[in-house]
Amino acid sequence: MAPALELTEKPIQSLPTKAVSGIRNGASAGVGIGLESPEKHQRVMNVFRAFIADLAQQYGEGHAGAPMGMAAIGIALYKYVMKYSPKNCNYFNRDRFVLSNGHACLWQYLFMHLIGVPSMTHDQLKTYHSARLDSLCPGHPEIEIEGVEVTTGPLGQGVANAVGLAMATKNLAATYNRPGHEVVNNMTWCMVGDACLQEGVGLEALSLAGHWKLNNLCVIFDNNNVTCDGSADVANTEDMNMKMRATGFNVVDVYNGDTDVAAVVNALNAARYSDKPTFLNVRTVIGIGSAKAGTADVHGSALGVEEVANVKRSFGLDPNEHFYIPEDVYDFFGDIPGRGEAHEASWHAAVAKYREEYPELAAEFARRVAGKLPEDWNKYIPNKEEQPTASTASRKSAGVITNALGQNINSFLIGTGDLTPSCNVAYKNKVDFQSPDLQTMCGLTGDYSGRYIHYGIREHAMCAISNGLAAFNRGTFIPMTSTYFVFHLYAAAAIRMAALQGLQQIHIATHDSIGVGENGPTHQPIAVAALWRAMPNLLYIRPCDAEEVAGAYNAAIRATETPTVISLSRQGLAQYPQYSSREGVIRGAYVFAEVEGDDFDVTLIGVGSEMVYAMQTRELLLKEYGLRARIVSFPCTRLFEQQSREYKHSVLKPRAGKPTVVIEAYPSNGWERYADASVSMNYFGKSLPSKDAYAHFGFVPDRIAVKVKDLVEEVRRDGIEVLRGDFREFNGSHWIELEH
Amino acid sequence: MAPALELTEKPIQSLPTKAVSGIRNGASAGVGIGLESPEKHQRVMNVFRAFIADLAQQYGEGHAGAPMGMAAIGIALYKYVMKYSPKNCNYFNRDRFVLSNGHACLWQYLFMHLIGVPSMTHDQLKTYHSARLDSLCPGHPEIEIEGVEVTTGPLGQGVANAVGLAMATKNLAATYNRPGHEVVNNMTWCMVGDACLQEGVGLEALSLAGHWKLNNLCVIFDNNNVTCDGSADVANTEDMNMKMRATGFNVVDVYNGDTDVAAVVNALNAARYSDKPTFLNVRTVIGIGSAKAGTADVHGSALGVEEVANVKRSFGLDPNEHFYIPEDVYDFFGDIPGRGEAHEASWHAAVAKYREEYPELAAEFARRVAGKLPEDWNKYIPNKEEQPTASTASRKSAGVITNALGQNINSFLIGTGDLTPSCNVAYKNKVDFQSPDLQTMCGLTGDYSGRYIHYGIREHAMCAISNGLAAFNRGTFIPMTSTYFVFHLYAAAAIRMAALQGLQQIHIATHDSIGVGENGPTHQPIAVAALWRAMPNLLYIRPCDAEEVAGAYNAAIRATETPTVISLSRQGLAQYPQYSSREGVIRGAYVFAEVEGDDFDVTLIGVGSEMVYAMQTRELLLKEYGLRARIVSFPCTRLFEQQSREYKHSVLKPRAGKPTVVIEAYPSNGWERYADASVSMNYFGKSLPSKDAYAHFGFVPDRIAVKVKDLVEEVRRDGIEVLRGDFREFNGSHWIELEH
Repeated sequence: MAPALELTEKPIQSLPTKAVSGIRNGASAGVGIGLESPEKHQRVMNVFRAFIADLAQQYGEGHAGAPMGMAAIGIALYKYVMKYSPKNCNYFNRDRFVLSNGHACLWQYLFMHLIGVPSMTHDQLKTYHSARLDSLCPGHPEIEIEGVEVTTGPLGQGVANAVGLAMATKNLAATYNRPGHEVVNNMTWCMVGDACLQEGVGLEALSLAGHWKLNNLCVIFDNNNVTCDGSADVANTEDMNMKMRATGFNVVDVYNGDTDVAAVVNALNAARYSDKPTFLNVRTVIGIGSAKAGTADVHGSALGVEEVANVKRSFGLDPNEHFYIPEDVYDFFGDIPGRGEAHEASWHAAVAKYREEYPELAAEFARRVAGKLPEDWNKYIPNKEEQPTASTASRKSAGVITNALGQNINSFLIGTGDLTPSCNVAYKNKVDFQSPDLQTMCGLTGDYSGRYIHYGIREHAMCAISNGLAAFNRGTFIPMTSTYFVFHLYAAAAIRMAALQGLQQIHIATHDSIGVGENGPTHQPIAVAALWRAMPNLLYIRPCDAEEVAGAYNAAIRATETPTVISLSRQGLAQYPQYSSREGVIRGAYVFAEVEGDDFDVTLIGVGSEMVYAMQTRELLLKEYGLRARIVSFPCTRLFEQQSREYKHSVLKPRAGKPTVVIEAYPSNGWERYADASVSMNYFGKSLPSKDAYAHFGFVPDRIAVKVKDLVEEVRRDGIEVLRGDFREFNGSHWIELEH
Repeated sequence: MAPALELTEKPIQSLPTKAVSGIRNGASAGVGIGLESPEKHQRVMNVFRAFIADLAQQYGEGHAGAPMGMAAIGIALYKYVMKYSPKNCNYFNRDRFVLSNGHACLWQYLFMHLIGVPSMTHDQLKTYHSARLDSLCPGHPEIEIEGVEVTTGPLGQGVANAVGLAMATKNLAATYNRPGHEVVNNMTWCMVGDACLQEGVGLEALSLAGHWKLNNLCVIFDNNNVTCDGSADVANTEDMNMKMRATGFNVVDVYNGDTDVAAVVNALNAARYSDKPTFLNVRTVIGIGSAKAGTADVHGSALGVEEVANVKRSFGLDPNEHFYIPEDVYDFFGDIPGRGEAHEASWHAAVAKYREEYPELAAEFARRVAGKLPEDWNKYIPNKEEQPTASTASRKSAGVITNALGQNINSFLIGTGDLTPSCNVAYKNKVDFQSPDLQTMCGLTGDYSGRYIHYGIREHAMCAISNGLAAFNRGTFIPMTSTYFVFHLYAAAAIRMAALQGLQQIHIATHDSIGVGENGPTHQPIAVAALWRAMPNLLYIRPCDAEEVAGAYNAAIRATETPTVISLSRQGLAQYPQYSSREGVIRGAYVFAEVEGDDFDVTLIGVGSEMVYAMQTRELLLKEYGLRARIVSFPCTRLFEQQSREYKHSVLKPRAGKPTVVIEAYPSNGWERYADASVSMNYFGKSLPSKDAYAHFGFVPDRIAVKVKDLVEEVRRDGIEVLRGDFREFNGSHWIELEH
């Protein structure tokens, strides 16, 4: 028989079986908790598993199998290992826990009930899969629920979030802890299933965790070897332990993870001693106790009434008793609220002592804990007078601000997907976030106090890790990411999760149009902006010059519950100091150049780097055709939609006989709300120098002016009604021959 | 000093140094090519590297470093190892080559010139980064160019494409080869840089290549240890060889990959003997020959005029000679066209012999090579009379078709991201695509002739591999993928590449709305459809019932140069045999239910699973308010945009005083082109049973009817102009209280 605990990396002989002491990552409040008997553990697991079977059976569906299999792991974590306070789930120095296999949420909900999270009542548990609007037991864990750190479900995201949570601890500890004063020292525990180890975002994040030597992270693999399609072997036969070792993890095996709580406890506690992140490979049986145990049949469905009864019988429980939790099981977890209060008290005491010795640091720390920026953050954004007047790429204008914020406010973590030189995000005297060990190993600079993050070429993990950084404690960090605009698409599933969870972060997305030029159509984004504009609770801001860039940062920093994508040019942009306005950006759209007395012929909407074509067309229209065009700048549709109807009308001025034309090198999708016609892109780009690419696709003011003049004449002749149901797209394909 | 060739996996002692014989993967035409002298190789490399330096210098930018570093690898591949025919780059049984580090394209362009690809002239090479519209040297390799197998640039995609190409060979070989008759036996070679081994999509694909034991795949790692941000160590310090071994690869090291062509040749040829895919870890120096060699300075920029001269001097070349290729270097590659013709001839001979012995198989093979489906493919799509009349989920209706196609036409490769039971894609007697070895290893069924593909929980690789399958030879395969609608977002960057390359494939995207229900907002897609609708050259089709599903498959199969996403419901859908029409789907939108004599009050657009709300509202409007609503079904905006203006008007009937309202549980973005108002979703969903989720967000016919009636009255009173610049969104937030 395999041993209960095999430490494959190095033996930790000093670990006691009965009690744990001397832990490294974490306050000392958990020391010395004696383990209860195996019989008691079995009793608790039996009740737990029967309850799970009842919950999934209630509405005839749900995920029962993994929660049943993971019962021993849960007891180890919630009863013996994790440091938290169930009556105050947001206690700052708590251990973080992420259920990356979010479909196993019943497991978490039931433990939250057992440990005494006040809102998670016995009645609440039964709302799983119900039609109750007040349910705290949705089909996957959601961040809004007391005790849930991050919303999970989309697989692979959670493990990346956990890496972010562990980084947050490392960074705060390196910044604020002082000898004899540990004000931040929590662990991050993350449950994963097979899927999280298959998904690319998980693999990227694990590589980084190993590289950064995040020894405060423990990834617990619920290795039941079953996925929806059957045996996990169907799609994966790699040597997972060897792979995790190669990735820089300490690997620990637990063979009978279904039953041996003590083995799991010891392995978990070993993680605190490791100099690397730990990968706990725990063998379990999905749906244990059921006749269908170990099969895909118990992954995503209820067991069936008869089988639920059989499970209970096999556990020596009464099959007619439903949702049954006897007093002795509650008693088993009865000490936890008290221990949680002790954790909290000891942390508060530590902070008080710290405050005495380091009053300034402590004040700053308190502000960070409160999730606040310094009140004068705005001073790092250049004033209008300081803006350039000569042609400047908006990635450069943004760089000035990113750099000032990064240099001066330590809430900002500036990350890059290996595009430091292109995205202009590196600031003076930046310190890289790195393991200090790598200084000697590879001659790298940096340590955990560093706030400049080299994510490598891993956009998806960059953004999913940022979600963890932002979720650590709202406002303590504002993560920034940076890559080419088109490559944030790799991370779309993570950015969506930020929007869903209301996590503030700033995505610096440079090279945002066909102006990218020679790199060609693979690098020229066309459709991506449509995704960001449609995404609920996300600000997609596309500024046209440095002043609008300032507005974009203003909006992004004020949006404390919303991620922002700031869309920036590679190429130099004309500056419009007479016209552009940061306040205008904050309202989403504004009148950029007005025609006096409402006496205009057409409204042109200019967006981002295409503003120049709107402004030049305006001049030509007047000069060549005597037509007066007003210009609207429209950097952010979502902010505009939040304005009053009056404001919107004052900007758009929809008037009979006066058409509106939007000019943007993206598809027109969505602009039809504000415009009657577009100069836009309905096809992919082409490898050409920036200016030539624009010209090739019809972004040429005199060509645009002809089209606009024709449109104005048509509308004068036939009425604006002629455009209803007949949105006009003016683009390259209409007037020049295209190769594709 | 490290040995030139270290076989870390197992020694292959029988490998001769000077000539190669007995290869396993590949025809025998390459046998016995003697290696030229090291001095000759050095001479060719010198000229090659100087030319690259000139090319990047020409416009003062471009990627010179990697192409220079990879010169020896290129000579090994193009001169000694790969089987291809430069005068006929599309010769069917050619070895496939993928430059996954696509920014190194100058390397490929220059080799294509040297080996004699007719279109790649000396003059063409100089078009790199120029404004020439006829350039065949874009900033990244593009599939349209003779000799380029797949468009690359977005990192990590190419290696996944290569996995697809290797699968294609395995599947065709298992299907058509017979003892003594190898009509398909090509290798796939894939160059990768550091990035492709960091990107999640690459890691996912490599796991699958190892699992499937694709021993006809060789991944060549240009290990120069430099990325944009400097040393690759900045973001990656894992043990790559160990990781690749754990993933199921044969790992071979080459230490002096800059100079030792023979070592690279031997290592590459060893790949043909391996029983696993091979990972060749080749150490190179980026920008070798330049003073900046080995630094990030030579990654993405030109060397500078002075440094280019220095490079040439260091190679003993004349610094004043530019774009210099002497005859002896041309001569070095001079035998290749002839060898290529011999490859072709031997393949044609093999096929002719095969045709004699297996005439029926050979006929089918010839059809596959010609990229054609059987002419009667349409018979596997149910007739209108065969369609269900009772409520049926569209994932079920689609399943009927997928299964029939999968079972009967071996061009279809049906894949799933571990959602076989949910996506209804498994067909009767399906054979899994698996390595036969796994039958004994893990008790799996399946072999390489299998066309049912378990991708595991790796959506991004699933779609990027599908690109490789589709690109193997256009039309030979039509890959299908399947997962939940929201999780295709993980693969957006790959699906974008399919659209850009015009690769036919069908993405079965089930669970496509808030109708997903209890799984909650993480699983309920909101913004994703907006991305697909804006994506050039992609069909996003959202059918409302089984008949429209039939239309969706019809459209997808006819779209031979376009990927299609078919968007399907989890929940049962009402069937509309009197109204729905497959022909209508092919036109994108059509009149579903007309009001006679043009005497209508309002047009309602119903889409996909929300058609039921349009139809029920129509009834209520008549019954409660005496208003006559016509119904338009609108499954695909892109197909509709391809119709004539007359057709569009006949469907939309824009009339003064008669508003149009679209009903879809997505954001309205883009619908403003066709409608004046929407019943839509501007926020994320909620974990509720399907019907309750719809009700919660306002998809309730009597509520919608009131809103529509009010709108009709307003328009009658104030004219349709009242809606201009004032698109109305009717959704939950307008009439019921929402928690979020």
